[in-house]
Amino acid sequence: MFKRSKPGGEVIGLLLDSVAAAQSATPPWRLAPAGWEDVRYAERVDPFLLVKAEIDSVSERLRRGILSGIPVLERAAEYFFKLGAEGKRLRPTMLLLMASALSTVGPPADFFLSVDERPANIHPMEQRRRQQRVAEITEMIHVASLMHDDVIDSANTRRGLMALNSVFGNKVAILAGDFLLARASVTLAALRDSEVIQLLSQVIEDLVTGEILQMTSTEEDLLSLEFYARKTFFKTASLMANSCKAIALLGGQPAAVAQLAHDYGRHLGLAFQVVDDVLDFTGSALALGKPALNDLRSGLATAPVLFAAQEHPELLPLIQRKFRSAGDVDTAQRLVFASRGIERARELAAQHASLAVCAVEAMPPAATTHALQCRDALLAITERVLTRSK
Amino acid sequence: MFKRSKPGGEVIGLLLDSVAAAQSATPPWRLAPAGWEDVRYAERVDPFLLVKAEIDSVSERLRRGILSGIPVLERAAEYFFKLGAEGKRLRPTMLLLMASALSTVGPPADFFLSVDERPANIHPMEQRRRQQRVAEITEMIHVASLMHDDVIDSANTRRGLMALNSVFGNKVAILAGDFLLARASVTLAALRDSEVIQLLSQVIEDLVTGEILQMTSTEEDLLSLEFYARKTFFKTASLMANSCKAIALLGGQPAAVAQLAHDYGRHLGLAFQVVDDVLDFTGSALALGKPALNDLRSGLATAPVLFAAQEHPELLPLIQRKFRSAGDVDTAQRLVFASRGIERARELAAQHASLAVCAVEAMPPAATTHALQCRDALLAITERVLTRSK
Repeated sequence: MFKRSKPGGEVIGLLLDSVAAAQSATPPWRLAPAGWEDVRYAERVDPFLLVKAEIDSVSERLRRGILSGIPVLERAAEYFFKLGAEGKRLRPTMLLLMASALSTVGPPADFFLSVDERPANIHPMEQRRRQQRVAEITEMIHVASLMHDDVIDSANTRRGLMALNSVFGNKVAILAGDFLLARASVTLAALRDSEVIQLLSQVIEDLVTGEILQMTSTEEDLLSLEFYARKTFFKTASLMANSCKAIALLGGQPAAVAQLAHDYGRHLGLAFQVVDDVLDFTGSALALGKPALNDLRSGLATAPVLFAAQEHPELLPLIQRKFRSAGDVDTAQRLVFASRGIERARELAAQHASLAVCAVEAMPPAATTHALQCRDALLAITERVLTRSK
Repeated sequence: MFKRSKPGGEVIGLLLDSVAAAQSATPPWRLAPAGWEDVRYAERVDPFLLVKAEIDSVSERLRRGILSGIPVLERAAEYFFKLGAEGKRLRPTMLLLMASALSTVGPPADFFLSVDERPANIHPMEQRRRQQRVAEITEMIHVASLMHDDVIDSANTRRGLMALNSVFGNKVAILAGDFLLARASVTLAALRDSEVIQLLSQVIEDLVTGEILQMTSTEEDLLSLEFYARKTFFKTASLMANSCKAIALLGGQPAAVAQLAHDYGRHLGLAFQVVDDVLDFTGSALALGKPALNDLRSGLATAPVLFAAQEHPELLPLIQRKFRSAGDVDTAQRLVFASRGIERARELAAQHASLAVCAVEAMPPAATTHALQCRDALLAITERVLTRSK
């Protein structure tokens, strides 16, 4: 049975403000039969299956858009979008579910499940197509940032495959990232919605800011959970928060509902990243598709280590020297597992997941059964994020 | 005395279509006294001096915008905008002159010469401020593309200084470029003008396309003047063309006038780049701030070599192997100087400069004496571009 863990004093002041009100509200839209509440969301609905056909058409459009360009770049950019390598599709799934969760017209017509063949710079009139464009833009921005981050962090693997920069060289990785960002900007401009354009342009700046924060962190920053939270917002949560808000705005929702959509994306993003940081300790290299302890080896101190350091202050100098001395990585790993670091990081992730749930529950009543089902799916995603093993 | 060279059959079909009509038109706006026509534009007006105060305030705003960020990046990005290293300021000068050339209200009030302190994401109401933003965005996009190109081309010097990637490392160069592009997108979004946003987003894509064309050129491409022209449009002229068009649109000009502004920027950009390519042969390393024959050494065949190859077909294999065999650079240099390559490239540049002049002359009558003076300055720039030695 799914029990929501209420956020408590433990939450280290992590961005908890905006859904404080939402928490106390009783879900006004729940129409499920009695007893239904006791079943885990994840057992009632598969969030990924619910929008799969539409996601497939968005993915196909992404692939074709890149293929319609220039040979070498195609090979490079397609590398990220080809079938089987496109990742968990968490972002587009979340966005299309949010679109339907707030829709008044039921499931999208078959027409919207076909591949939209119009060029990126042509303004799409239909609301659903505009929302699909946001899913597409979000994925392009996400992948572009992965490409540049891989060069910056000198990564060798990504999603279990060789990272693009290893296969094609840094130059192509830079260019392919630039191409995706440029194509995202062109697609965004064609939406002709000033607020949405501003939101998603800001996301690109936030991603860069996050990467810069990471690169330029001081010894003091490295020890700070607040700094970790801020960096995580910029690097992961901003994109999810602002793209969810864009979906709500394009759906004609008022500012208050758009803010709830934003809160959902933000807290889901924070939960997702904290779990990612936990999995770097607990997952196997095979399941993760990248070496475990990758963060420690890169000198990054994430939530598990930062919590562990509160119990084992001998970790502090290791964090400050970015685990560079011989044996540091092993010592840090040992101390993390000898502490409540993993457990407290999981609690932090659960608190964010819980706040994401609150944001959905605070939304005005669902207009259709399909909208209700999609809200359940949004809740199911928060569970999936917490329980995933890769 | 300045004689306009009319474009002839020699022009290798380079993008000559759009101002064909303009050419035959008599300048309708010229109000200068008799005899004035015989004086070179460049002797009548210093285009750079005419807008210097306003350019200074735009540059100061650019510097402050970068300084308001994060320490390491500031050092990196400021590197390009600090006094003395900001280059020729050709683009912002051209743009503010274009704004005034089409204005009906005379020179900008003193208010507009002060530094605009509003954040990038705040919509500026005043027409002149919006036009200044385009100058700022254009410079940010230009510098960002230089930063990434330097990493991609592994350049060591730029503007006579060590290139950013040499000083701070490739990672910071990538990030700083990303930061500028992101900031440009945020600034652009705040203009809230769909057409302008689309124009300048397309420019970013064109710049990437140009770099990709260069990186992925086939042996056949390398021999082709048409390919050279296309690449030059994407890498240099698109930014100048579309930013000029944006200035006209923000100035409330109709589509036909905006197109003339576009044509001016495009032909000036093409002339500028062809001259740049000539200077790589004729300039000294000291004046250029970079080693002469840099293009040949990088494997690039530009206009002088391509024209020379029409007289000396023995150049063709050297071009195709990107001057990689021992002695290739010296042989190519010798054959270029033994041919009319330099002369024909200069003619090509002059033809484009002449078409830029035609575009200005085809504009509707200037509304004020100041507008007239700024049109003269736009013409003077076309001369400067042809006669510059660095």
